[in-house]
Amino acid sequence: MDNGLLVVISGPSGAGKGTICKRLREVMKDLKVSVSATTRQPRWGEIEGESYFFIDEEDFINRINNDEFLEYAKVYGNFYGTPKKEVFKQLEAGNDIILEIDIQGALQVKKNYPRGVFIFILPPSITELKNRIEGRGTDSKEVILERMKSVYEELNYAFEYDYVVLNDEVESAVEKIICIIKSEKNRAIRKKAIINKIREV
Amino acid sequence: MDNGLLVVISGPSGAGKGTICKRLREVMKDLKVSVSATTRQPRWGEIEGESYFFIDEEDFINRINNDEFLEYAKVYGNFYGTPKKEVFKQLEAGNDIILEIDIQGALQVKKNYPRGVFIFILPPSITELKNRIEGRGTDSKEVILERMKSVYEELNYAFEYDYVVLNDEVESAVEKIICIIKSEKNRAIRKKAIINKIREV
Repeated sequence: MDNGLLVVISGPSGAGKGTICKRLREVMKDLKVSVSATTRQPRWGEIEGESYFFIDEEDFINRINNDEFLEYAKVYGNFYGTPKKEVFKQLEAGNDIILEIDIQGALQVKKNYPRGVFIFILPPSITELKNRIEGRGTDSKEVILERMKSVYEELNYAFEYDYVVLNDEVESAVEKIICIIKSEKNRAIRKKAIINKIREV
Repeated sequence: MDNGLLVVISGPSGAGKGTICKRLREVMKDLKVSVSATTRQPRWGEIEGESYFFIDEEDFINRINNDEFLEYAKVYGNFYGTPKKEVFKQLEAGNDIILEIDIQGALQVKKNYPRGVFIFILPPSITELKNRIEGRGTDSKEVILERMKSVYEELNYAFEYDYVVLNDEVESAVEKIICIIKSEKNRAIRKKAIINKIREV
């Protein structure tokens, strides 16, 4: 059995990662989602082990020290992290996993698991991105401007990824990602098992 | 305009490269085929500049010395080679080119144009491969045995390629290659132009 693929969907805030991942999971039903660990309090309706693994800060810091996370970050006082153990268990069972994550997180994952498939979602234009961020309606002009500046810088990181997919239209972006996943399965580096099998006959 | 892709379809003798390329060209009508230069005499019906560029040996050797070939080989006393100029002209015009070639040739191309997409076609099993080679009906048992031995050795080269595609069934192999071509267009290394364009807006 071949190992599954770890597919990392990442990119600037407002590029449309969330929508793409949601659609991707609808189309590729076998795709697993990794469950993060967090120190924040569960919200109403969230389920332990499904929404998150809820753990306390001491436990989280211990796990950091034991190198148990593919990536982690502290956001507004709470820790969030992707446990290696859960992800590797799925990959070893031959399941593909999708991980939707910001750029800093993706770069950490790449360091810990370079065999992953790293996909940078590109907003069609800075203007369009601005519209998307403004469309959320929750942020002030200053916040938007600050975010645009950081997006501009974040575009530099695109070249650290394996693929760059333009999100001009969700369906077309999803189709491209499906193609990438399929073709990554034919990468020479992932084909040792089958070549040895051919030789055996 | 993005540069086109140079797609190199290669693999052991009898793996089914020819059938796959023929079908691929039927499905992807925009795919160009590179025209080789050769020193052998034109056969009946062959057209200069379409079947081959027919040149004399002195000319061919001059071109070797001027480093004008992506790859070349001498087979049964005749030279065959892929002219860089023709290939690069197409790639710069944004056209994708397919090159069907044996392993030694593919390795030469890789050295001269590492940005190419190198696909190793894998026969489903040594037994199946033996059937295919025997099915041609033109070779003696000794020749087949000798060829099988060389195929066995050639499988070692699969890991010098980007992709390994199992040819268990032509349509499924062709579908995989189409996916590879599409997804290679989204490689981060080929996306500089679009990222700069997004910034301009």
